[in-house]
Amino acid sequence: MSEKITLKIYENYGLVSAKSFLARDASEAADLSKKIGFPVALKIESPDILHKTDTGGVKLDLYSENEARKAFDDIMLSVKESRPDASIKGITVQEMFRDCFEIIIGYKFDKDFGPTIMFGMGGIFAEVFGDVVFRALPVSKEDVSSMIDELKFSDILLNGYRSVKSVSKEMLSDVILKAGRMAYELFEDLDSFDMNPVVLKGDEHRIVDFKYVKSSQKNYLTDEKPYTKYLERFFDAQSVAVIGASGSSRDKLGNYILDSLIFYDYKGRVYPVNPKSKMIMGVKAYPSLSDIPDRVDLVVVSIPLSGVPEILEQCREKDIHNIVIISGGGKEAGSVKLERSIKDSAHKYDIRIIGCNCIGIFDAYSRLDTFFQVNDVMSRPRAGSVSMMTQSGTVGAGFIELMDHAGMSKFVSYGNRIDVDEADLLKFYEDDPRTKVIAVYVEGFDKGRKFFNTAKKVSRKKPVVIFKSGRSSKSSDLSISHTGFLSGTYNLSRGIFNQAGLISVDSFEELVAASKALAMQKRADGNRVLAVTDGAGTVIQAVDRMEKKKILKMAELTEESKRYLEEKLPAYAIIKNPIDLTGSGTDRDYEISIRTAMEDPGVDIIMLWFLFQDTPVSRNINRNLSICCRNPKKPIVIGATGGEYTRYMSGLIEKAAGIPVYSSVNDWVTAAEALAIK
Amino acid sequence: MSEKITLKIYENYGLVSAKSFLARDASEAADLSKKIGFPVALKIESPDILHKTDTGGVKLDLYSENEARKAFDDIMLSVKESRPDASIKGITVQEMFRDCFEIIIGYKFDKDFGPTIMFGMGGIFAEVFGDVVFRALPVSKEDVSSMIDELKFSDILLNGYRSVKSVSKEMLSDVILKAGRMAYELFEDLDSFDMNPVVLKGDEHRIVDFKYVKSSQKNYLTDEKPYTKYLERFFDAQSVAVIGASGSSRDKLGNYILDSLIFYDYKGRVYPVNPKSKMIMGVKAYPSLSDIPDRVDLVVVSIPLSGVPEILEQCREKDIHNIVIISGGGKEAGSVKLERSIKDSAHKYDIRIIGCNCIGIFDAYSRLDTFFQVNDVMSRPRAGSVSMMTQSGTVGAGFIELMDHAGMSKFVSYGNRIDVDEADLLKFYEDDPRTKVIAVYVEGFDKGRKFFNTAKKVSRKKPVVIFKSGRSSKSSDLSISHTGFLSGTYNLSRGIFNQAGLISVDSFEELVAASKALAMQKRADGNRVLAVTDGAGTVIQAVDRMEKKKILKMAELTEESKRYLEEKLPAYAIIKNPIDLTGSGTDRDYEISIRTAMEDPGVDIIMLWFLFQDTPVSRNINRNLSICCRNPKKPIVIGATGGEYTRYMSGLIEKAAGIPVYSSVNDWVTAAEALAIK
Repeated sequence: MSEKITLKIYENYGLVSAKSFLARDASEAADLSKKIGFPVALKIESPDILHKTDTGGVKLDLYSENEARKAFDDIMLSVKESRPDASIKGITVQEMFRDCFEIIIGYKFDKDFGPTIMFGMGGIFAEVFGDVVFRALPVSKEDVSSMIDELKFSDILLNGYRSVKSVSKEMLSDVILKAGRMAYELFEDLDSFDMNPVVLKGDEHRIVDFKYVKSSQKNYLTDEKPYTKYLERFFDAQSVAVIGASGSSRDKLGNYILDSLIFYDYKGRVYPVNPKSKMIMGVKAYPSLSDIPDRVDLVVVSIPLSGVPEILEQCREKDIHNIVIISGGGKEAGSVKLERSIKDSAHKYDIRIIGCNCIGIFDAYSRLDTFFQVNDVMSRPRAGSVSMMTQSGTVGAGFIELMDHAGMSKFVSYGNRIDVDEADLLKFYEDDPRTKVIAVYVEGFDKGRKFFNTAKKVSRKKPVVIFKSGRSSKSSDLSISHTGFLSGTYNLSRGIFNQAGLISVDSFEELVAASKALAMQKRADGNRVLAVTDGAGTVIQAVDRMEKKKILKMAELTEESKRYLEEKLPAYAIIKNPIDLTGSGTDRDYEISIRTAMEDPGVDIIMLWFLFQDTPVSRNINRNLSICCRNPKKPIVIGATGGEYTRYMSGLIEKAAGIPVYSSVNDWVTAAEALAIK
Repeated sequence: MSEKITLKIYENYGLVSAKSFLARDASEAADLSKKIGFPVALKIESPDILHKTDTGGVKLDLYSENEARKAFDDIMLSVKESRPDASIKGITVQEMFRDCFEIIIGYKFDKDFGPTIMFGMGGIFAEVFGDVVFRALPVSKEDVSSMIDELKFSDILLNGYRSVKSVSKEMLSDVILKAGRMAYELFEDLDSFDMNPVVLKGDEHRIVDFKYVKSSQKNYLTDEKPYTKYLERFFDAQSVAVIGASGSSRDKLGNYILDSLIFYDYKGRVYPVNPKSKMIMGVKAYPSLSDIPDRVDLVVVSIPLSGVPEILEQCREKDIHNIVIISGGGKEAGSVKLERSIKDSAHKYDIRIIGCNCIGIFDAYSRLDTFFQVNDVMSRPRAGSVSMMTQSGTVGAGFIELMDHAGMSKFVSYGNRIDVDEADLLKFYEDDPRTKVIAVYVEGFDKGRKFFNTAKKVSRKKPVVIFKSGRSSKSSDLSISHTGFLSGTYNLSRGIFNQAGLISVDSFEELVAASKALAMQKRADGNRVLAVTDGAGTVIQAVDRMEKKKILKMAELTEESKRYLEEKLPAYAIIKNPIDLTGSGTDRDYEISIRTAMEDPGVDIIMLWFLFQDTPVSRNINRNLSICCRNPKKPIVIGATGGEYTRYMSGLIEKAAGIPVYSSVNDWVTAAEALAIK
């Protein structure tokens, strides 16, 4: 295939090139320019000259035969002066356009996600404002339509600007689809291409410039499927061996891990393994795995990584298929080879590994965990419906504690993912009947395409909230292509997440906020919110914040609702959206407002903000909300900022009424957005 | 002056118009086009035609005499067809430019801030991306330089793009200065103007189009000064009368206000006023202010606003100059006239009013407050150095509780600002020796220019942190001018804040974060941060977040520091920036890292992130940090996310070590940014 790629290969896919002919002398250039129609551009053609502009080899906006003739001579003179050695084939005369839009369409074979396509406004726009949209290939008509909707610039593009006519969405969509089809057919041999600019005018397009980079070896697209065999056993293990605890020191990570397994709520059998100790923390210890007389379901390792190959052998002998490796010292510390050999053995023996370099797993039902964070400094949440996976243990530890009231099902900190990765866990959580919401924290992908393919399916069944950090790392592809450069920021991941139907958020707090909301409340039938508050200041901030994502709309109450509220609420209440109950607002006022909103057909989501510090809000507000709003037919989210009493009251409401409470406006809005996203 | 304003008035200020002449027939158009030089544009001139393009009255990019001749005829034909009644003066032939940048320079007389100037990229850029910068007029050379630095697009503008040459900063600065001078001289008679586009090429500029809107009456620029007379007495009042408490009901707002004054730490005398009660909450009550036998320093009012005029008369008689009006029902409920009359009386009697529609004041030293939020649901912070003013009581109540460890000096919730406004308070806080940091929350300005003038001075003496909400309200000026439209978003306020030297933040949490940091730590000598952590995940997020404002830089440790750390820290530590101590990191490791950073000349700010849940971090970390870091010579900020233990430990560290602790990455970075801003 490679040898067939030419500078006009896109014409085979129904894309149209700007008219362009080679002129050998000035008078031929003049004739050609007349034949093409003005204005035209002239560009030097030489295999030796890469950067045409630098040699004076380009003249734009030529409006007459005379100008074309003169431009030919000027270019020749200038090029010969600056590059006397260059072999010159002639000068290309190229069609130019007035009053048109310029876009860029790019393709890139991404090392994580495979073939991807990008589209954005041409030139400066893409670079300064990053207003570009990515998708993984192949793309459907719906994918392309959502790409166009996502681009900020599309408004202008589809509506025209000054003398530049609007562009047909159908044509634009068709052009992107064709470029996508071409990229997908050629990806084995192409690393990237830029169509830059593509000129758009009404329902016509022209590819003005096309650059591509061939691949040095065939690109390969994985179709690796998620592998979930034995994963269940990590969580329902009836017996756990811990390798790394000591009988003589109480400060080994292994001892901390044992602490939770022995002294708290886990009901299974626990076997410390240490050749030097007979007893560890009051429990009989064994010299090695092989010496344990019973079946072992799960092995937790906190000794140096170099000891793991030996442990794998023992696992094979004892028919153990689940290991959590807490220890660091893997590839992050340079031990790439060791990790590789562990991976290979695990694969050979069908042993599933979580880790290394992680805090391991937690099951909120079996109360099994592998954390070296002891219970008195890190609480374990109650059983519930959120399952999480995280690349960072630090982020995971924070998440766990903040799920206290929402409740969790399963948790995995997978660290270096020697074996079990995000896609395996996604599929596993999809099939877990106790999981209603999936939360993901990731810093970078390893098998991005496997993740994408899996996430696309899982998100149809359960909401998946994802926060990706590591956004600002500049891609080293900068020098190769525009598309490569623009993918180095968060643009590529964001596009992939949207395409896969994930709920992507922009901070850890938003990950917590959205997960809690989805676990505690039902999803909304629409995006129209009604706010009820005893202090309007925070709602003003919320409206500002809603502008950022444009997912939510402020609802309009029906006349009937308004009349009812005017009759029932005291005179101090301001009946708009928000319903401002002012500092005089009472529990009863909130209740009347909530009940009205529940019945109002124009309201999909109810957002309450409380200043619990306002004395007219009673100390029974938690009970009153529980009676009024437990299992509501429309979702409710609450906001409240304050000190100790506010935190206490917020906790009571989360526990008893099952309504999530947020202390920041941003989280409060994020929660409502997560419930509104289909 | 008004009659002197013409379409080329800017030429009087040294700005250059695009060459442009009126042609009466096609051959004259051809001659003029040759004289001007190609390309040219032709535009219909008729007093009856406002929207030239719509009538076919504009032709651009004409490159020869023939094209100009033909364009003349085409325009005439088209205009006569679409507007047969229009009187036609001729057709303007105008110079055009190739390979140039287009910018917009605009002026607007803002109702709050008076004359302002705006600059941004021309056309689509300004509208879609809002990449524009505002300043209040007059502007200095430094103001204009910082405007240029603030524009995202300046990088491209000053460095060139493709065939478009870089623009001279000196020229650009000069053009904006001249436009600013002109706007400032003419503001009495002009409501707005747009120079759009202004074409820039190398060190040349041309004003291509200029539109202005005259004012219907003279615009007037206030030079109102902040007025601080009697303000001190709000806070050090030795005796307080409360009007609005009841002897028969315990649930009046007035009773809640009394609760704090009588039962808690305030040491002054308290006089309930109520004609129907002899005793209220165990304290002798008086029928009216006049019946109180002693001097009264402060009156707090929570009865309906209609009763206030009578109270003002009594105040005058008793020589009282300080009233806090908690009650709502002012202009927000339509009572504009009543507010006005209260304002007039207050002015006449030299009585200072805080409110109405607010929660009033708090002094952390005298422990005087006027809050109807009782102490058991809203704690009052300890005495310290943050003073706050807030338009919203709800926002203020949250702020107060979150200043628990940082400590406050004075607090004012000013609500409808009948009298005392932001500028008065700024000046007052500037002069208050107990105030080190000023925090401002505002939704919209009333006397914006007074605020700006005052803030500019105050910010030179004390850091002023400001959060403005109400950002997305679309300006109704949309129809009048581009500049008007673009000022309707947050753009105008942001520009004004930057010009005044304020630290502007984007959320309530950031306001809290920055205020705490500035109160608890010294300001940094530079912007280079070193991070130390036991879990790198959060630092990855922090680096992403730093990209947003580009205020901070990651520091580079000296070779000496690196060698020292390699020698002193255990093998698990990864010595980069961040210094990643991993989950095995101990108190001692942190201490070694901190001490090294304190001595390293390449480090200005130390950012610590703790996973307190990691068991190797000891329960004595608060004491160890206090010993190592109390009053450090470089500022330190800490981040930690988690549950109960983490919050407890964070609180201990804030109290004992005096280092602010943040639970979100965003706040942690915001705090460091606030310390780095000069």
